[in-house]
Amino acid sequence: MKVLVKLVATGLCHSDWHFAKGEAPVRFPMVVGHEGAGIVEKVGPGVSEVQPGDHVVLCYIPACGKCRWCLSGLAAICDRGILIGQGTQLDGTFRLHNQRGEDVAQFALVSAFSEYTVCPVDSVIKIDPDLPLDRACLVGCAVPTGWGAAVNRARVRPGETVAIFGTGGVGMNAVQGAAMAGAEKVIAIDLVDWKLEKAKEFGATHTINPTREDPVQRVLDITHGVGADVVLLTVSLVTADIIGQGVRATRKAGRTVIVGASDRRMDRMNITPYDFMLLAKEIVGTIFGHNVPRVDIPRLLELYRDGKLKLDELVTKRYRLDEINQAFLDLEEGRLLRGVLVFD
Amino acid sequence: MKVLVKLVATGLCHSDWHFAKGEAPVRFPMVVGHEGAGIVEKVGPGVSEVQPGDHVVLCYIPACGKCRWCLSGLAAICDRGILIGQGTQLDGTFRLHNQRGEDVAQFALVSAFSEYTVCPVDSVIKIDPDLPLDRACLVGCAVPTGWGAAVNRARVRPGETVAIFGTGGVGMNAVQGAAMAGAEKVIAIDLVDWKLEKAKEFGATHTINPTREDPVQRVLDITHGVGADVVLLTVSLVTADIIGQGVRATRKAGRTVIVGASDRRMDRMNITPYDFMLLAKEIVGTIFGHNVPRVDIPRLLELYRDGKLKLDELVTKRYRLDEINQAFLDLEEGRLLRGVLVFD
Repeated sequence: MKVLVKLVATGLCHSDWHFAKGEAPVRFPMVVGHEGAGIVEKVGPGVSEVQPGDHVVLCYIPACGKCRWCLSGLAAICDRGILIGQGTQLDGTFRLHNQRGEDVAQFALVSAFSEYTVCPVDSVIKIDPDLPLDRACLVGCAVPTGWGAAVNRARVRPGETVAIFGTGGVGMNAVQGAAMAGAEKVIAIDLVDWKLEKAKEFGATHTINPTREDPVQRVLDITHGVGADVVLLTVSLVTADIIGQGVRATRKAGRTVIVGASDRRMDRMNITPYDFMLLAKEIVGTIFGHNVPRVDIPRLLELYRDGKLKLDELVTKRYRLDEINQAFLDLEEGRLLRGVLVFD
Repeated sequence: MKVLVKLVATGLCHSDWHFAKGEAPVRFPMVVGHEGAGIVEKVGPGVSEVQPGDHVVLCYIPACGKCRWCLSGLAAICDRGILIGQGTQLDGTFRLHNQRGEDVAQFALVSAFSEYTVCPVDSVIKIDPDLPLDRACLVGCAVPTGWGAAVNRARVRPGETVAIFGTGGVGMNAVQGAAMAGAEKVIAIDLVDWKLEKAKEFGATHTINPTREDPVQRVLDITHGVGADVVLLTVSLVTADIIGQGVRATRKAGRTVIVGASDRRMDRMNITPYDFMLLAKEIVGTIFGHNVPRVDIPRLLELYRDGKLKLDELVTKRYRLDEINQAFLDLEEGRLLRGVLVFD
C-alpha cells in the first residue's frame, strides 16, 4: 500500500550526510533525504488512511503497528527500522530510476530530496492543512529526536539539571525538551558560539564552549561537584571521548543518553565499568527520541501551534534543490541549525 | 556513635579477595570481610538504635540517611560509600591494631573476618533473634546484590526473559530474584557445571556453559532471535568481553546490568555505540542491588522465614577462622556458592 507524495519542503539532517558519504551500509545509487513534508498526489490500492490533497509529514520509520515493539509503545524501534538502508519499498520493488532506467535506491523508503516520492502509507503522517510545511517537515526527524531524548528517554523531571553536548538541529530540540520538562538548569555545550547564543533562546540557562573550557569540570562546578542528572549526547558523530565526557559529567546513578549517530567502526568507549558498579550510572540509547510517530508527530505540531514549541527559529536558511551541495557545505561548517530545501 | 559487635558468622565474598589482592585502592594492613552477622556486645555514647544482646547483620554501606541519595531511595549509593577502602571509622580513628600497636585498617568500616569489631551504628541492622546468624550474614551482601539487581535495578517483570552471566554467590541470587519477579525464562550461564545444576534449584529454566557453546548465540536461539529482555552480569570480574557479550545477548531497548566488580584499569568495552543509537539498548550499573539496607535486609529475612527465599542452599561449606586461606582457595577455584566463616 503506497502513496505518491509531492514534496513541498525537506530539512537537511546530518544523517543524510553520513549515509551519502557511505558511513553506514546503504545501497548506491541512492537518493537521501528523510525529513520531508508534502501533499499526497495519488494513493495506491488499499490505502484508506490518506487521500489526494492531504498534507503529510514523512517519517523515516514506517512503523508497522504489529511487531512487539510497536505494540509496547516503542514504535521508534519497529522491526522495519532495519530497512533504512535497503533501498526498496516494503514489497522489494524500486520506485526511483535514473535516466538510463537503472534502479535508484530510496533512503528510509522515502527519499525526500526529490520533487516526488513513492513511499509506504506507513511512512506518512497526516497533519492539519493550515500548518506551514517548510517547518512542519522538521517534526519528521530533528525535533522529535532531540525533544524526545529529553522528554521520553531521559524522562527529565522538574528541577533537574540537564547537560546537552551539541546544540545543532537535534540538540537544540533537546534543549527545548529539557526546558519544557521543567529542568532547573539546562547546560548547552557546543563548539560554535552562535549556536550557544541561540540555545539561550531555546531555554539554556548555561553555555559552555569546550574550545575554551573543560566541559566536564564546568558541569561539575555548576552542580557543586555532583554532576548533571541527565547528559544528552546530541553531537552529529558520537565518539568514544564524548561518551567518556558525558559519563564523567553525570551524577551518581545519573543517565547518559546517546542520541547522535556513532561511527560504527568504534569498538570502545572511554569509560571504566567502575562507573557502573560503584557509581551506578547508566548509558542508554535512543532513536527518534523514543517517540511514537503516529502519536507524537501530531502532538509536536499542536505544541507548535500553541506557541510552546519553537520551529520557526530552527530554520536558519532555505535552499532550492539545485543548491543542495551548498546546503550540505553550510551544514558541515556549522552554519545551520536546520537548512530546509523548498520545492517549487 | 559506635557499636562493639561479637561476630558469629561471616560469608566470603569475591570483593574481599579483590581488595585483599590490592585490586582496588585500600590502605594496608587491613582486615577484610564485610558480610557478617553477630551480637551487639556494647554500645557507645549516643547509641539508641541497638543495645547489648541484639542480633545484627553488618552492612558495608553505613547509609547516613541524610544525603540526597539516601533521601531519594538510593541509600545504596550513599555518599559514605567512598569510605569502603579508607580504613578508619567515620571520626577518622582506627579501632583495630596489631600486636606492635600499629593501626590496622577496617574494610568497609566493619572488618568482619574478626572475632570482634567496632563499627558505626549505621553499619548494623537489627534483626529478629530467632534467625540463624550463619545464614543471615548472607543478606549483608551476596543476597541483596544479586536479588536486587534483578528486582530493583532491572525491575524484571512477569513473563520476561532474563539471562544471568555468572551463577556464584551473587548470580545465584539474581537467578532467584528473577524467578521471584515472575520471569518466564531464567537462563543461567556459568563455566562450572555444578553451579549450573544448582541454578535449576534456584529457578533457572535454561543453562549454558560457555566452554561448550556460544552463550550469545544460545540466548538468541532460546529467544527466537530477539535477545533477552534483561542481562545481568554477575561474574566476579566483569571484563570488556563479558560486557560485549551481555549487550549482544540483549534485545532491542533491553537492559544490561553490570553487577560484578570490574577491573578499574579497564578503559574500554567491546560494544559499539551503534547498539545504543539504532537498537536503543541500555547499560546500567548497580551496587548492593539498589536495596535500602535498613528496609530491605529485614525484608529479605522475612522472605527467608516464609520459605520464599533460599539461604540455606547458598552455604556450600563452613570454615573456622584459621581455615580462611583454604576458604579463599576454594572460592577462587569455583568450589563454593558461599563459604561461611563461623566463630566459636
